[in-house]
Amino acid sequence: MQAMANRSCIIRLSRYKNALNRLRTLNFVRVFSDNLADAAGVTAAQVRKDFSLFGITGNRRGGYRVDELAEQLNKILGKDQLHEFIVIGVGNIGRALLHYPGFERSGINIAAGFDIDPAKFNRDSKPPVLPLDQLAGVIKSRDIKLAILAVPDYAAQQVLELVLSAGIRGVLNFAPICLKAPAGCVINNINLETELENLIYFVNAANGGN
Amino acid sequence: MQAMANRSCIIRLSRYKNALNRLRTLNFVRVFSDNLADAAGVTAAQVRKDFSLFGITGNRRGGYRVDELAEQLNKILGKDQLHEFIVIGVGNIGRALLHYPGFERSGINIAAGFDIDPAKFNRDSKPPVLPLDQLAGVIKSRDIKLAILAVPDYAAQQVLELVLSAGIRGVLNFAPICLKAPAGCVINNINLETELENLIYFVNAANGGN
Repeated sequence: MQAMANRSCIIRLSRYKNALNRLRTLNFVRVFSDNLADAAGVTAAQVRKDFSLFGITGNRRGGYRVDELAEQLNKILGKDQLHEFIVIGVGNIGRALLHYPGFERSGINIAAGFDIDPAKFNRDSKPPVLPLDQLAGVIKSRDIKLAILAVPDYAAQQVLELVLSAGIRGVLNFAPICLKAPAGCVINNINLETELENLIYFVNAANGGN
Repeated sequence: MQAMANRSCIIRLSRYKNALNRLRTLNFVRVFSDNLADAAGVTAAQVRKDFSLFGITGNRRGGYRVDELAEQLNKILGKDQLHEFIVIGVGNIGRALLHYPGFERSGINIAAGFDIDPAKFNRDSKPPVLPLDQLAGVIKSRDIKLAILAVPDYAAQQVLELVLSAGIRGVLNFAPICLKAPAGCVINNINLETELENLIYFVNAANGGN
């Protein structure tokens, strides 16, 4: 099902859903594709096209009901279930993600962090930080499918193989190396350095070139 | 110049450049488009197409010289100059970025962090954390064009207007709201929650769907 949705489409759905949640706190009952287009930085035609891909229909005069639409998007995005992640690598970025308040707000639970440095272990913190050799046990006992990698580049491939063999099916990778997904798994790479380089390039280009 | 390069193309160039830096540490002298394709997760034809857009030519038998190619890519990406960023919002994510070792390695300097919470101020840390009302002065005196926003969603639009009016031209936004760039400015949005939702969707889809 939903075979035609690509990464960009799903990112837009997340943005619509976030905008809807804000509208709900403002007691909005109805919303139009133009409103959602503004909030997500796309055209109204794009909003309608994305919705039609998932069989969501509004009505031109009345728009969409905020609560119904939010529920439909939450279901598509799997947000009607709780999703547990683990974080591997508790350095600067890993620690920030372990304690990022935005995840809990949106039904994403960080089950534990893992590291190889005993100085970072803490069973009693929330979430706990555990030794890497306990990773497979935690993944299996809690049936966790999702992991965030925040390890140095030289360790990334080895850690990836470890988590995949333990049953992880989706990885968000912050290690500054482009990891590739074997069949049946999903890997999204976020490279902070690359993001900054991208910004530098386009700012230079807008200002008349390097 | 280079009017046809889009975001995806520049991200690939960063990946090629990172792969080249690794090859340099291994004393490689030559590299082929197939090697770079493997490292960046694209086809060799894509590598050659990206390079031809910038007038970079190899030779089918000899490939590219690693040092020359790295130099060309560094120049395109503006890495022959030092780029200074500021970070606004020194919470979980902001603090991690202030101390992220990967930036310094790649010629990106974080000049200072800014916050409104006096408990976070520290003139003597490296980089220093300063009150938000000193932001405009620092941007002007050091001619800084680039900022990372890591503030809460409700503060993001106001902080964006503040930094743009002080002279910032490029923003990497971690606040969980989609900011739009006025003419002449560039904004790249990274929404961590959206990235995780994206992963959840595709893992669910690969496992038979929600």
